[in-house]
Amino acid sequence: MRNIKIILEYDGTNYYGWQYQKNTNKTIQQTLEKKLTKLNKSEVSVIGSGRTDSGVHAKCQTANFYLDVDIPASRIPIALNSMLPPDIICKDAKEVADDFHARYDSKAKKYRYRLLNRSYHSVFTRNYVYTLYKDLNLEKINSALKDFVGYYDFAAFQSAGSDVVNTKRKIKKFEMKYIGEEICFDIVGTGFLYNMVRIIIGTLIEIGLNKRPENDVKRIINSCNRREAGFTAPAKGLTLLEVYY
Amino acid sequence: MRNIKIILEYDGTNYYGWQYQKNTNKTIQQTLEKKLTKLNKSEVSVIGSGRTDSGVHAKCQTANFYLDVDIPASRIPIALNSMLPPDIICKDAKEVADDFHARYDSKAKKYRYRLLNRSYHSVFTRNYVYTLYKDLNLEKINSALKDFVGYYDFAAFQSAGSDVVNTKRKIKKFEMKYIGEEICFDIVGTGFLYNMVRIIIGTLIEIGLNKRPENDVKRIINSCNRREAGFTAPAKGLTLLEVYY
Repeated sequence: MRNIKIILEYDGTNYYGWQYQKNTNKTIQQTLEKKLTKLNKSEVSVIGSGRTDSGVHAKCQTANFYLDVDIPASRIPIALNSMLPPDIICKDAKEVADDFHARYDSKAKKYRYRLLNRSYHSVFTRNYVYTLYKDLNLEKINSALKDFVGYYDFAAFQSAGSDVVNTKRKIKKFEMKYIGEEICFDIVGTGFLYNMVRIIIGTLIEIGLNKRPENDVKRIINSCNRREAGFTAPAKGLTLLEVYY
Repeated sequence: MRNIKIILEYDGTNYYGWQYQKNTNKTIQQTLEKKLTKLNKSEVSVIGSGRTDSGVHAKCQTANFYLDVDIPASRIPIALNSMLPPDIICKDAKEVADDFHARYDSKAKKYRYRLLNRSYHSVFTRNYVYTLYKDLNLEKINSALKDFVGYYDFAAFQSAGSDVVNTKRKIKKFEMKYIGEEICFDIVGTGFLYNMVRIIIGTLIEIGLNKRPENDVKRIINSCNRREAGFTAPAKGLTLLEVYY
């Protein structure tokens, strides 16, 4: 039995997120396990680097699983892609050490939130970008986002419904950049709480709309109270860009 | 009655092209006319700069129409976008001279053909890019495409089913560029025959696959015979980028 590490790209629009769910089979994990089980001729469980929420996308999600069947690792993407729907793609596969674990071994993750600040969406990116037609003070946002960088208790930036006990996380890097017509927020952290990136973006948008002072971030972090933070920005703007090991 | 010029972006995936058709209402023109007629409270006919084929996209299609209703031109995009499906967007509208005609007045058009030369597509651009997993000699392609630039009879690069008599067209510019992971072919011409860009791209791909000599283009042009040219590259890779007036 070999341990295989794969890199996946997926369009999360039509899925209820990454994670296995009892009430639906429309999750990325289940779709993948079904095809891998077919390939392996016996049941395969897939370990993802972490969950992505319903509607969230991934450019380089990482996962691992154990395979009995004797197929060269380099052939797995082609075999898998011939079975997967067009909104999930396996970009790479390689054999790794038996004890490699996509979740426990991940050191950090990079997410991108894509924003279009104008009166109309782009038809080509409409499922991957959040379009907001209100004047945003981007200088204020760019200044405020620096206050997120560091090791803090991010309890205020977690949606209800998570059973995580330790809500301390480290944000290593947080940048705002202009890519084409879009404003992209790239955030690197050792881990993220449930909806954390989307609540951070929602809070920054409220600062950019002058609904909050520019220096509000530290106060919200210290409050440890979800109600002090901003709205949860729409899932479709968020993409898991990279998982670091 | 005012003459209104609009700029449109559309995802052509789910449409039978721009042009009105008797057997379907799933064309861009019909979708637009239906909404404009509603806005105008009397029938509106839309003149496009030209047809785009079934499955072809547009970033800046230009069109014009006459409006009775008294709505400021600057409000038309918002009014129209609230009625249009998410795969068609009006980006701009302005009042123009009574005799402006989107088709007759267009001086040139720029198209882009997007190619991904690897073993797997991108889930995010899967409807807008042609993915080809075969070794392509891109230097040969880049050299051969220069032979298309000029004023020629492009009869060999026209699909059957067109009633165009004069098949002479001028290609003003033709460039191959790398944008991110993609290879993009940008072509500017005074006008294009039915499927002309797609047959040009198909021919270049055959040169890149070493199925044809690098210097085959002039010979094909001189033949004026469709059977001498290459295959018609898939519609989804093609986008109308700009219309010049």
